Amino acid sequence: MGKEIERKFLVTSDAWRSEGQSSLLRQGYISAEPGRIVRVRIDGDHGCITIKGMASGASCGEWEYPVPLQDAAELLDQVCEKPLIEKYRHRIARDGVLWEVDEFLGENAGLVVAEIELESEEQSFVHPDWLGEEVTEDRRYANASLIRKPFSQW
Amino acid sequence: MGKEIERKFLVTSDAWRSEGQSSLLRQGYISAEPGRIVRVRIDGDHGCITIKGMASGASCGEWEYPVPLQDAAELLDQVCEKPLIEKYRHRIARDGVLWEVDEFLGENAGLVVAEIELESEEQSFVHPDWLGEEVTEDRRYANASLIRKPFSQW
Repeated sequence: MGKEIERKFLVTSDAWRSEGQSSLLRQGYISAEPGRIVRVRIDGDHGCITIKGMASGASCGEWEYPVPLQDAAELLDQVCEKPLIEKYRHRIARDGVLWEVDEFLGENAGLVVAEIELESEEQSFVHPDWLGEEVTEDRRYANASLIRKPFSQW
Repeated sequence: MGKEIERKFLVTSDAWRSEGQSSLLRQGYISAEPGRIVRVRIDGDHGCITIKGMASGASCGEWEYPVPLQDAAELLDQVCEKPLIEKYRHRIARDGVLWEVDEFLGENAGLVVAEIELESEEQSFVHPDWLGEEVTEDRRYANASLIRKPFSQW
């Protein structure tokens, strides 16, 4: 088991756009139930399945396995709940940490969040100027929630 | 994607016990929802995750991945719905096909079913003397159903 410690924030400006590298992610959920999340993701030409256990604060048990791209595509099309999540992920390395800014498409268009993965819950980090309110524990922003109640319906 | 074509039968006697090889299976479900089954299984010292899509008759899309034994044990203990399924699987090769006779333990003790995996839905096979009523399409006998309504509560 890996342990994922992740904090999530809203984004207050487009200032982050001048930095980093971007890829298109397509992902869906075989199970979107909190504590038993099963996610299928295609990032570029890589497929993976990720299982997430019960979250406690910003921490969550996580098990991740690469799968053939074709399998990931079949699972997204044939098994995952619809709609799928599509988003651009912009990876921005600064001040010794990696920010992932997710810009959602489709029914979640307009939503932009920034995530940072930490080594411990106590780890401090520099807040970029464009960083807004923290929403780590607000379940509405979980991708598994956004397939059931997308941002356009808030 | 693999395609699993499987038929399931009740067992009318213990005559099968003189044949075959046996192992203890321990398995659980991260998702037990028909069409989106996610199963974790330990068979001896092998762990695997299996995803099963929507069934149509005796056929079902299936995607299976080996995972480290420790991961499988963690997923069973920390993520899967309880109770888990424990059963002896007896593998019996005869008349050119492989029968798997599952003898359930715990809350499903007393239930014994025989399964055969086929190349096509039309494939014929010799019915052993100990084979009883077919229950392929009876969802009560699905392992994912037996965790919610175990045999002892029928």
